[in-house]
Amino acid sequence: MGNSEKIILGIDPGTATMGYGVIRFKNQEIESLEYGALTTEAGIPEHIRLKDLYGGLGRLIKKHSPDVVAIEDIFYFKNKKTVIKVSQARGAALLAAANSGKECYSFTPLQIKQAVAGWGQADKKQVQDMVKKLLNLKEIPKPDDAADALAVAICCAYSLSTLSAIDM
Amino acid sequence: MGNSEKIILGIDPGTATMGYGVIRFKNQEIESLEYGALTTEAGIPEHIRLKDLYGGLGRLIKKHSPDVVAIEDIFYFKNKKTVIKVSQARGAALLAAANSGKECYSFTPLQIKQAVAGWGQADKKQVQDMVKKLLNLKEIPKPDDAADALAVAICCAYSLSTLSAIDM
Repeated sequence: MGNSEKIILGIDPGTATMGYGVIRFKNQEIESLEYGALTTEAGIPEHIRLKDLYGGLGRLIKKHSPDVVAIEDIFYFKNKKTVIKVSQARGAALLAAANSGKECYSFTPLQIKQAVAGWGQADKKQVQDMVKKLLNLKEIPKPDDAADALAVAICCAYSLSTLSAIDM
Repeated sequence: MGNSEKIILGIDPGTATMGYGVIRFKNQEIESLEYGALTTEAGIPEHIRLKDLYGGLGRLIKKHSPDVVAIEDIFYFKNKKTVIKVSQARGAALLAAANSGKECYSFTPLQIKQAVAGWGQADKKQVQDMVKKLLNLKEIPKPDDAADALAVAICCAYSLSTLSAIDM
């Protein structure tokens, strides 16, 4: 892969709020292109909420044409109802990537924290501070889901960089 | 809704095996049009597996043009890894229905057992026997996932019938 430019779309899955962050990775430098969150309202049938999220991600993919889609793995949840909803949303994100023919990678929260903050036990605030610093942003991205999605994208960029070093 | 014909696609979600069953419901009679299971192999990246399942369901929806898609709710799982995989597959099924513009309903295992076997504590074998009997089949549908999917479709048919009676 060398020093070629890579556009990476990071996704933090959720049904009510699906965080996204698009970064450009070139010559070991990263910059933010766009970040935010897709939201859906409670009370709307779940298949329609998933359709809206899938459509929103499809539009982002069309707009930025990312080389890679990076999606956070689901790791821990207090209750089963939450894990079902988040997993269904994650399924919609995986499908949006696959149906666009994009490469798709998953990263665990541990991998993301290690890559972005330097250690796997970093707390949410430390990761957000590092996202702000690494992307030269004036503020910590809001909502939290957007900052998390940028962290996934950064983790993916560093992983591609490592793979690239091995390739050489 | 009265006595109008309804085609119902029932789905029992899963990543390795996604059961499906298509029935026609008319004049309080039900008949099986097609049943089976979509399968994906372990070792294939999960976004590609979901894409294959989504594509397979899309082809079934195009072929039978169901009025309603009925999907089993996720209720109980021994381990978290399983619930994540099944929920992602359920997300793909919900999306296949939503992106085809189909009405979509969910039914819990309890509702399905009550509707098909007459009581919520019925075991798997009792439900399968009733699926065979109600659809006038010579054998219990195989694999189990197909029989489960037909049970979801039958449960949905009876629910629509009840709604229809209330409408009148």
